[in-house]
Amino acid sequence: MFKHSQLESVKAWLADPAHAGLPLHARIQRAIRQLILDGALGVGRPLPASRALAQSLGVSRDTVETAYGQLHAEGFIERRIGSGSFVSQRTQPMASRGKARRGKAHSVSQAVLGQRGTALFQQGGVRDFLAPRPFAPGVPDTRGFPLATWERLQRQVLKAHGSEALLHSHPQGMSQLRQAIADYVNLERGAHATPARVLVLTSSQQAMTLCAHVLLDAGERIFIEDPVYHGARRAFEAAGLECVPVPVDDQGLRVDLLQASPQPARAVFLTPSHQYPTGATLSLERRLALVEWANREQAWIIEDDYDSEFHYAGRPTACVQGLDAHERTLYVGTFSKSLFPGLRLGYMVLPPQLVAPMTVARTLLDGHSAPIPQLTLARFMEGGHFGAHVRAMRAVYAERRDTLARLVRRHLGDFVEAKVPAGGMQMPCRLICDIAEQDAIAAARRAGIDLQGLSEMHADGQGQAGFFMGFAAYTAEEMEQATRTLEQALRRLR
Amino acid sequence: MFKHSQLESVKAWLADPAHAGLPLHARIQRAIRQLILDGALGVGRPLPASRALAQSLGVSRDTVETAYGQLHAEGFIERRIGSGSFVSQRTQPMASRGKARRGKAHSVSQAVLGQRGTALFQQGGVRDFLAPRPFAPGVPDTRGFPLATWERLQRQVLKAHGSEALLHSHPQGMSQLRQAIADYVNLERGAHATPARVLVLTSSQQAMTLCAHVLLDAGERIFIEDPVYHGARRAFEAAGLECVPVPVDDQGLRVDLLQASPQPARAVFLTPSHQYPTGATLSLERRLALVEWANREQAWIIEDDYDSEFHYAGRPTACVQGLDAHERTLYVGTFSKSLFPGLRLGYMVLPPQLVAPMTVARTLLDGHSAPIPQLTLARFMEGGHFGAHVRAMRAVYAERRDTLARLVRRHLGDFVEAKVPAGGMQMPCRLICDIAEQDAIAAARRAGIDLQGLSEMHADGQGQAGFFMGFAAYTAEEMEQATRTLEQALRRLR
Repeated sequence: MFKHSQLESVKAWLADPAHAGLPLHARIQRAIRQLILDGALGVGRPLPASRALAQSLGVSRDTVETAYGQLHAEGFIERRIGSGSFVSQRTQPMASRGKARRGKAHSVSQAVLGQRGTALFQQGGVRDFLAPRPFAPGVPDTRGFPLATWERLQRQVLKAHGSEALLHSHPQGMSQLRQAIADYVNLERGAHATPARVLVLTSSQQAMTLCAHVLLDAGERIFIEDPVYHGARRAFEAAGLECVPVPVDDQGLRVDLLQASPQPARAVFLTPSHQYPTGATLSLERRLALVEWANREQAWIIEDDYDSEFHYAGRPTACVQGLDAHERTLYVGTFSKSLFPGLRLGYMVLPPQLVAPMTVARTLLDGHSAPIPQLTLARFMEGGHFGAHVRAMRAVYAERRDTLARLVRRHLGDFVEAKVPAGGMQMPCRLICDIAEQDAIAAARRAGIDLQGLSEMHADGQGQAGFFMGFAAYTAEEMEQATRTLEQALRRLR
Repeated sequence: MFKHSQLESVKAWLADPAHAGLPLHARIQRAIRQLILDGALGVGRPLPASRALAQSLGVSRDTVETAYGQLHAEGFIERRIGSGSFVSQRTQPMASRGKARRGKAHSVSQAVLGQRGTALFQQGGVRDFLAPRPFAPGVPDTRGFPLATWERLQRQVLKAHGSEALLHSHPQGMSQLRQAIADYVNLERGAHATPARVLVLTSSQQAMTLCAHVLLDAGERIFIEDPVYHGARRAFEAAGLECVPVPVDDQGLRVDLLQASPQPARAVFLTPSHQYPTGATLSLERRLALVEWANREQAWIIEDDYDSEFHYAGRPTACVQGLDAHERTLYVGTFSKSLFPGLRLGYMVLPPQLVAPMTVARTLLDGHSAPIPQLTLARFMEGGHFGAHVRAMRAVYAERRDTLARLVRRHLGDFVEAKVPAGGMQMPCRLICDIAEQDAIAAARRAGIDLQGLSEMHADGQGQAGFFMGFAAYTAEEMEQATRTLEQALRRLR
C-alpha cells in the first residue's frame, strides 16, 4: 500500500552506507519514521501489510514485524487487529509544520549563540599541540615516563580499593592525594599547605575558570602580566572580567605599577617562579610588596606555578603563597607538565575561607576528578616515584635546552636570538631579521614544524616578534633535523 | 646572635608536629624566614654564625649551612665573607607592613567572594552521595562491573598507543570513542549522530555548564521542567540564567504551556525518556510539538537522556534528537550511570553549527578529557562489553526495583506510597502520613540511611513531600535490612 516513490525511498534508506551500522529491522523502522516525519505519510494513512512489505523489500516478515512493533511502541503507528497498521493520530503536530515554518523567519546565524558564546568562540580557546613534533612548546617528554611503574601502582589501587575506586570522588579530591600534594608543595615549593586546603582539579585551566567565576563578578578588573599566558587571559575574559595588563621586566611583574594604579582590582594573576613567556623570576622585594598590596587592597593573588619543577640552576625560589601570612594567595599547580598531559590532574592550595566555596563551585562545573588516577598519583608521590621522575627529566631537559641553544646559534643565528631560559620547557626566540612572525610560523608549519608566536601574548598583540621553541619532548637528533629544516624554510623567505 | 626569644621561636618551629614532614634544614630555613617575615629580624640584622646556631639547636653545621644557603638563594639574607650573614635589604617591603595594615580597614567577609561566587556557594552545588549505602539514589552497582575486562582493555590500549596515550586528547574527544558513541546512540536511541557531531565531555554536568554559557547570555530565560533535576537548574542559575519552570504531568513536560508562553525563551531543558524525578515519558505528540516549537522560535532543546539504558518494560522511546530534522536539539548522555561514576566521561551530540563553538568553549573550562579512559571505553563499546553490561544490569536493577517495591509495601505502607518506575535507578515515594519530609530524611540519616527529598526539586520548594529511594546499587538483603531500620526510625517519629 506504499506508493512506488515511498517504497523507493525506503529502499534508498536501507541501501545508504551511512546506515550500514544498524540492523535491518531498525533501518526499516527509521525509513518509515522518516516518511512520517517528512509528511509523506499523513495521519490515518495505512501501512503495507507486513507480509507484503517483506516481499517488496526481500526481507523476512519477522524483520518487518519487529520494525512495526517499534513504530507502534513509539507511538508513530496504530495497529488494529484485522485491518492493519495506520499512521497514528499522535503524529498530528507534524501537519502544522509547513505553516509554522513560514510563520516566523529567523536567520539561523542570528540565533545560534549568545553574545558570550560568540565572544568565546571568536577568541579561539586554548588549543594544545596534539601530536607533538618539534618545536611544539609546553609538552613534556612522555617517552621517558615510567609507565610500567604507573600501571603497577594502578593495579595495586584497584586491588586495594576494588569497585569503590569506581564510585564518586569527594569533590575536594581524595584525601590520600591531598596529603601527598600538601607534603610536596610544603617541601619543594616552600608553601604553607595542609590537606584541608588542597582542592584537586583536572587542570590549571579549570583553576582559572573557577577563580574567575567565584572571586570576581562580570565587569570587574583583574591585573594580568603583559605578556601573559593566553589560556589564563581567555578564561578570565570568558567569565566577563576586564583584564588589565601590567608590564613585566627582568625581575617579573612591575608590582610598583599595581601599587600606583589609580583604580583598584579585585585580583592579580601571575607566574612568579618562571614568568610565561619571558622566563623572569619575580624578585623577593616584589614578592613581599605584592603580598602587602594584596593585604592592603583585600585583593587575591592567583599564583600559577605551572612548571617550577623544571628549574635548571639551583632550586627555584619558594612560592609567594608561603610568604603570605595574610592568606590572600591561591596557589595553582598542575601535573600536566611534570608527569603527562593526559592525566588531567591539577590543584589549588587555597586560603581556608575559600575551600568550601570553591569546592561547591567545582561540583557545578564537572562534579569531581576521577578517583583511580588520583589514588594512583598519591601512591606515585608517596613512593618517591614523582620526585625521581622530576629529577630525571630535569637533567634530560637541561641537556636538551643546551642542545637547542647550540643548534639555534649554529643554524638560525641570522634569523633569531634565543634567550636561554633558566627553567621550563621552551625557549623564547626573538626575530632579528625582516621576516614577519606570522610568515615564519606559517613557513615552519608547511615544513612540518610547530612554533608558537610570542606577539599574541602581549596585551596589544604587538610585542617583540618571535616564537617559542619547545625542547623538552624532543631528542637531540630530532631537534637537529628540525632545526636544519627550519633554517631552509626561513632562508626561502628572504 | 639570636635573642633568647628568637632561638626559642626557632626551636618551637622545629618541634611543631605540623612541620615533621620537612627535612631538618628546611625546617630551620622556614623558621628563620618566619622571623624575618614577622619583622622580628629587621633589615641588616645579623644571623648567628652557622657553627653557633648548629650548637644551640643540636644539629650539624652542614644542616644550618644548607638552610642559610637556601635563605640566601631566595634573597632573604646576604652573606659577606668574613663578616657573616645579615637580613637582606631586599626584605625592606616588610617594614611598611604595620603601617599599611592600619591604613585601610576591610572586613575579610566583605571581600571574600564576588556576588556570583556568593550566590553559587549559597545555592549549594551538586553533591553526590559518596560512600553509597541504601538508599542513596543515582548510584549504579559497581560491584557487578567487569573490572577485569576493563583492565585488560586498558592494558591493550597502553600497549597499542604507548606513551602517545599520555598526551593531550583532541578537545572534541578521541575519534575512536566518538565513533563508538555515534554508533551506540544511532542504534539504541534512534539518534541522528555522526562522529563529527559528538563532543566528549567529563560528565553531563559539564554539558549543562557549557550549554548555559555558550547558548545563552546572563539574564536570558530558559524553560526547565517542574519538578526538575537540581544539578541542571543550579548550573543554569550559576551562569546567570533565569529558569522558568514548566509543569510536568504523566506525559512529561506540558509542551502546550511552552507554546502558549507570552514571553519566549532561548532554550528548554528536559529529560524526555524518563523525567527526573517523576519518571514520566514524554509522549510522541509532545515530542513532535516540542520540535516544532523549537524550530518556530529558533530555540534550543537540551535533551538529557541520563539513564535511558535502564528501561524495564520494552525498549525506551527513541530520543527527541532523532525526530528533529531542524537540528535544534542537543542530546546529552553520560556513562556515570551505565558504567561507573568515577569514569568521568559524558558527551553531547550537537547540531553541526554548534560543534566548533562548544569545543572551543570546552578548552577554556578544562582543556580536554583524559585519553586512556576514552580509548579504553571505545574498545569496551566496540567489543560488545558495554551492551552486555547494560543488559546484565538492566535485569539486576529490574529485580531490585521489584524487591524494593515489595519491601516498601510490606514495611513502609503506613508512611509512604511508592510509584514504581518503568526505568532508572530510584523509586519516588510520596509521604502519606503526617511526618514532614525533612524529619523523615533526618531520622533516616541518623539511622545510617540516605534518602533524597523530593520537594526541593519543585520550583517553589513546596512539591509533594516524599523521597527518592535508590535501589540499583543494593542487594535484596541490604535493602531488606535497611527498610526494616527505616521503618523503626519512622515509627519513632509518630
